[in-house]
Amino acid sequence: MSTTLIHHIGTLVTNDEGLGDGSPLGLLHDAAVVLDGDRVAWVGPAAEAPAADTAHDAGGRAAIPGFVDSHSHLVFAGDRTAEFNARMSGRSYSAGGIRTTVAATRAASDEELEANLLRHLREALRQGTTTFETKSGYGLTVADEARALRIAARHTEEVTYLGAHIVSPDFADDPAGYVELVTGEMLEECAPYARWVDVFCEKGAFDGDQARAILTAGKAKGLVPRIHANQLSHGPGVQLGVELGAASADHCTHLTDADVDALAHSETVATLLPGAEFSTRAVWPDARRLLDAGATVALSTDCNPGSSYTSSMPFCIALAVRDMRMTPDEALWSATAGGARALRRPDLGALTVGARADLVLLDAPSHVHLAYRPGVPLVEAVWQRGERVV
Amino acid sequence: MSTTLIHHIGTLVTNDEGLGDGSPLGLLHDAAVVLDGDRVAWVGPAAEAPAADTAHDAGGRAAIPGFVDSHSHLVFAGDRTAEFNARMSGRSYSAGGIRTTVAATRAASDEELEANLLRHLREALRQGTTTFETKSGYGLTVADEARALRIAARHTEEVTYLGAHIVSPDFADDPAGYVELVTGEMLEECAPYARWVDVFCEKGAFDGDQARAILTAGKAKGLVPRIHANQLSHGPGVQLGVELGAASADHCTHLTDADVDALAHSETVATLLPGAEFSTRAVWPDARRLLDAGATVALSTDCNPGSSYTSSMPFCIALAVRDMRMTPDEALWSATAGGARALRRPDLGALTVGARADLVLLDAPSHVHLAYRPGVPLVEAVWQRGERVV
Repeated sequence: MSTTLIHHIGTLVTNDEGLGDGSPLGLLHDAAVVLDGDRVAWVGPAAEAPAADTAHDAGGRAAIPGFVDSHSHLVFAGDRTAEFNARMSGRSYSAGGIRTTVAATRAASDEELEANLLRHLREALRQGTTTFETKSGYGLTVADEARALRIAARHTEEVTYLGAHIVSPDFADDPAGYVELVTGEMLEECAPYARWVDVFCEKGAFDGDQARAILTAGKAKGLVPRIHANQLSHGPGVQLGVELGAASADHCTHLTDADVDALAHSETVATLLPGAEFSTRAVWPDARRLLDAGATVALSTDCNPGSSYTSSMPFCIALAVRDMRMTPDEALWSATAGGARALRRPDLGALTVGARADLVLLDAPSHVHLAYRPGVPLVEAVWQRGERVV
Repeated sequence: MSTTLIHHIGTLVTNDEGLGDGSPLGLLHDAAVVLDGDRVAWVGPAAEAPAADTAHDAGGRAAIPGFVDSHSHLVFAGDRTAEFNARMSGRSYSAGGIRTTVAATRAASDEELEANLLRHLREALRQGTTTFETKSGYGLTVADEARALRIAARHTEEVTYLGAHIVSPDFADDPAGYVELVTGEMLEECAPYARWVDVFCEKGAFDGDQARAILTAGKAKGLVPRIHANQLSHGPGVQLGVELGAASADHCTHLTDADVDALAHSETVATLLPGAEFSTRAVWPDARRLLDAGATVALSTDCNPGSSYTSSMPFCIALAVRDMRMTPDEALWSATAGGARALRRPDLGALTVGARADLVLLDAPSHVHLAYRPGVPLVEAVWQRGERVV
């Protein structure tokens, strides 16, 4: 294994309070990092850095941990440009919503689905995302859900079974029958490829009792729960997630005080997905309220062709600062360490000795530029598992 | 001069109503473009395209005219990260505002200013901006304003004299004396490098009478007026601009019905700068109201280190669609043809025979993706004056 020294880092975000300035970001100035194989081997002042096989001069730029995008829907085919255009132009459109993508995904070959996934992964990598979670949910048959997870599992460790995205159109008159399938045969086929089980708990999707049945069945198969909760309206999702030990409750747009309190006193991360509110002109989640209550907040893209077709974590950071009242520091933490917490991955989201060697160099002197320079592609270089990939 | 054929264009935006689908964007599908030297020589269906010296297969991607960014402030030094961070974090900060940048700019060498300008131009070019206007306004002395314009004029034809950005701190007690300088000796020194004269007509900057004196003096020297108008509050700027034949009234955030009416019945373009509202959490300009009244709308970045440090026209398009109620088609037109109108450049902002050969290929099948995929860097290739530059 070879070692790489990245030195002359103007501002280094370690996400270790014990390092540097003592803030949650653990900021070090004029710093260096040594990567050894796929791990971080050394972090400290540039002047004290040990030698390495190769050296990269960061030229005073800022370095941050690779983004951890803990919520995406990337196994799909087709796009929904016409639906988006109509919605944003105030024209009516007989949108099939998720069902449009389900039809396109079922009709696609394995090769098409994998190529589309890889295209989006490369795009995200160029924007600094070194870890992503992704879900099934556009198949909604046993075979189509299983193949989505099988394809996803070739490219990430963080695979989520979301047979319960919506009730399959094939079961329009028999939602109970669909829940039975999702908790039975479909789960049986899907569990070997997945780490997580998820459900869209919302009016029009699955109610609290159905969501409980689905997550409980998944747990019995060794999957860890996460939940799409409280996106479009108040509902039981968040508190159910906390009760069942979900790693994350995602969306959290409509919260009661009891919901906020439950999150703040649990290990369940509140994952906020501002791309969805941006692209649907919805009300913003109140990140400030969650943070002030003591909840752990993650930021993710929700990348999907319907409600949030962005793969850009920097864009989500800019929105979180502008519209969700997060500070630039909080937003950066949530997009890196926060995502790692939401995936229960203590090896990710930090640049500390032993952490995975996922590092992004920004063409900027400070991580604050991710919010200060919205829309500007600032990712200069990316190391993933110790290897330079961008 | 050599010719280049770009073929297999999935969707081509020509901005010529006489072409293609008859919409303002003049959309052609499965199209081709031939560039000859720095001009467009042929536009039409791919199947009918003539031969050329070199050919580029667009692979079904969308092609659009290069973005025309008609409002930026790129001759400056320093940045204002700390001020931005404090504002977004709700901390008080004794910000010097524009004066902070004036001090840094005055202290910088010519070489530093030019290097900074070039860095931002390259960044904008990678995002598809093939034409930009830029201004002085961070010098505020005769020598510093003149050198800013001299440096800008090496890199763009669209140079704007903005000695009247704010009253120079050197004239804090004598604003009338500063207006005299701006309309006298400073104008004399600056006019040879500039095409445009501009003034920030706003409470705390220059009032209507001062703005009239400044624009009138500029006109007498052969400069064409444009105006920063109605950004922070209602005021006389927009109607003054229309009266004096300004090519553009920029910002237009706070408008009365009479302001909208004046714009709609004039040749003055309303240039909207959503990056400024984004980065200062201000109220959005009402593009819908202007468009529905019949005004011509341009979109630009306002790129500057204080209130809008984005160089991304795609980001401005996404904001215009989401928050200013423009359709994706309108926003694309305003960011290309609209900017060209605001600069009175009939040779720019369109892909028609004889237009300047500025073409952007998107890594997307449709221009709608610029709004549908916010924050994602979608610029695949750029030709500027017929030459492949990205």
